[in-house]
Amino acid sequence: MSKNVLVMEGDGIGPEIIREARKVLERVNELDNLDLEFTEAMLGGRAYDKHGHPYPEETREKARAADAILFGSVGGPQWDGKTERHLRPEAGLLDIRSDLDLFANLRPAITFAQLADASPLKPELVAGLDILIVRELTGGIYFGEPRGIRTLENGERQGYNTDVYSESEIRRIGKVAFEAAQKRGKKVCSVDKANVMEVTVLWREVMDELAKDYPDVELTHMYVDNAAMQLVVNPKQFDVIVTGNLFGDILSDEASMLTGSIGMLPSASLNEGNQGFYEPSHGSAPDIAGQNIANPLATIMSAAMMLRYSLGAGAAADRVEAAVSNVLDQGLRTGDIMSEGMTKVSTSEMGDAVVAAL
Amino acid sequence: MSKNVLVMEGDGIGPEIIREARKVLERVNELDNLDLEFTEAMLGGRAYDKHGHPYPEETREKARAADAILFGSVGGPQWDGKTERHLRPEAGLLDIRSDLDLFANLRPAITFAQLADASPLKPELVAGLDILIVRELTGGIYFGEPRGIRTLENGERQGYNTDVYSESEIRRIGKVAFEAAQKRGKKVCSVDKANVMEVTVLWREVMDELAKDYPDVELTHMYVDNAAMQLVVNPKQFDVIVTGNLFGDILSDEASMLTGSIGMLPSASLNEGNQGFYEPSHGSAPDIAGQNIANPLATIMSAAMMLRYSLGAGAAADRVEAAVSNVLDQGLRTGDIMSEGMTKVSTSEMGDAVVAAL
Ligand SMILES: CC(C)[C@H](C(=O)O)[C@@H](O)C(=O)O
Ligand SMILES: CC(C)[C@H](C(=O)O)[C@@H](O)C(=O)O
Repeated sequence: MSKNVLVMEGDGIGPEIIREARKVLERVNELDNLDLEFTEAMLGGRAYDKHGHPYPEETREKARAADAILFGSVGGPQWDGKTERHLRPEAGLLDIRSDLDLFANLRPAITFAQLADASPLKPELVAGLDILIVRELTGGIYFGEPRGIRTLENGERQGYNTDVYSESEIRRIGKVAFEAAQKRGKKVCSVDKANVMEVTVLWREVMDELAKDYPDVELTHMYVDNAAMQLVVNPKQFDVIVTGNLFGDILSDEASMLTGSIGMLPSASLNEGNQGFYEPSHGSAPDIAGQNIANPLATIMSAAMMLRYSLGAGAAADRVEAAVSNVLDQGLRTGDIMSEGMTKVSTSEMGDAVVAAL
Repeated sequence: MSKNVLVMEGDGIGPEIIREARKVLERVNELDNLDLEFTEAMLGGRAYDKHGHPYPEETREKARAADAILFGSVGGPQWDGKTERHLRPEAGLLDIRSDLDLFANLRPAITFAQLADASPLKPELVAGLDILIVRELTGGIYFGEPRGIRTLENGERQGYNTDVYSESEIRRIGKVAFEAAQKRGKKVCSVDKANVMEVTVLWREVMDELAKDYPDVELTHMYVDNAAMQLVVNPKQFDVIVTGNLFGDILSDEASMLTGSIGMLPSASLNEGNQGFYEPSHGSAPDIAGQNIANPLATIMSAAMMLRYSLGAGAAADRVEAAVSNVLDQGLRTGDIMSEGMTKVSTSEMGDAVVAAL
């Protein structure tokens, strides 16, 4: 049975990096007879420009029908402050997460052996680093109500947001983390601020309960401020980190930077049906858009995650990952990961090299 | 006119580090004829054990009457989960911040030249680092209502907290940041999540308005996830960072770790009357409490900040800071900052050395 893959370029460097990932997907589609069918749609700032909404109705329909979605990146200065918040490029991303109930955001923070020197951290701290951050993506303060800006009786304005999680929301993301840990290092660190925030007191309780179902996994708890420190001083202590939407946003970005491999890191956002939304961890880099110099490898690695998690094509995923490792071994580097003695290549040259290595 | 200094040991290593800072204060008091008077009180876990509350009535009275407060640290495993949240050691800290309206938390992240090698970051990234993080300390999600854990109609529990800031709260912390920047590198970076949270949309607006009053200071805005990344890859781009209570908690801890000098970093929490609460940036380190091995220098540096900001004794503050630099130059190190070729000293030996260097 054919599988339906929706491809969306998005903004900034999105079109360039998606083009290369698509080449790679089409090649493995042939090689492994995967029977993938590709459709296209728009999401983000350019979608707003064309359709008046960052998550247009047409995209919504195609997204709901897709088995998996491969996405580039969202946003750019041309949309800053131009429209209401719910029409901004990023709102498209939040809308699709919510619409498809993509509650489980998986963000690996891995140091590629070939790139360990690129880390801002001392090499011994990050060599061999392999953390999986499991971030809750459809709840918490991102979506909590009430929210807004109101005028108080004394005439001054007040902004407010609500951070909120129910037991079932916490349990389902916890399960994802424990199950992932069972296949890895068997450790889950749950990050909260239970000494201050009641919403995370409940978070901690539910994680403790859930841990009883996974006796083979060790659960620890850490306050978010401490986690931000521990990631810097001793990142290798972590296996799987599970946390809420906002803390996950902050910690996964911090962790990705530690690796020195930010241009390499994929992400997956899954719902309960394993329908998935795959995008690079990095942003839309508007400053280098259109120059054919962006690093397509994070998007290609995202395509590999898609093959594995949503398309049941684990062997093809392995093949793509091996090809990426192979081009790094060949010394090919885009500008962001360039170092002495390596060969600098463009976005499309990098994509072609991965296709050749398949 | 004499000045009233309230000294509180707190928990864990608190008593040991406070003892050394007090020695130093008493010595400059004599040398510079400062006319300081010392009183004592309890705050935190041991206060709870003795008085049934982490911020007892007696402490409250003394705190309100003090010109400045020097504090050790709070919390330890013996109080974990033993009591209700509002009676936990940390609650004492939150109570006193709120009671004295200590809204302006100043957290320097400085790399001491003598300790640059201790940073987890590559030395070129942190040598000479000098950031001031200005964290709002009495608002935001730490104190916002409504909050709690409720049971929904379907029987499941839900935790919730409210992040809330009014214009006047944002303006007063913004002023502190701009004024600090005028005396330093003339740059303020305001950190928010305005692409998602309305409370920080207002935050950004107020900062933009305020910036007009400080034409000599450059204001930039950064999302919190990006700030967590930028601190790791290029911390020296920052001069003053201003942000809300929760983001400030996370980013100031992250920044302190980058310096490699966490055992050295002071903090000040001020109200509008410049009454101040001074404590080391690090925690209560219960694992090494009572062993006379903790580093007292962060507390001694906090005492220096107290002299400068709340006691009008800038020259004495300079003297203390010079003495600390001097003992580092002598090669004296407590265990946490020990490196090859240096002389390892105990908590009290370090305090004595600073007194001798005064
Ligand atoms: C663009 C923004 C809304 C988004 C988020 O905060 O979730 C991004 O930072 C991310 O992490 O995917
Ligand atoms: C102990 C805790 C409540 C406190 C906070 O979160 O503010 C601490 O982490 C700090 O930063 O002073």
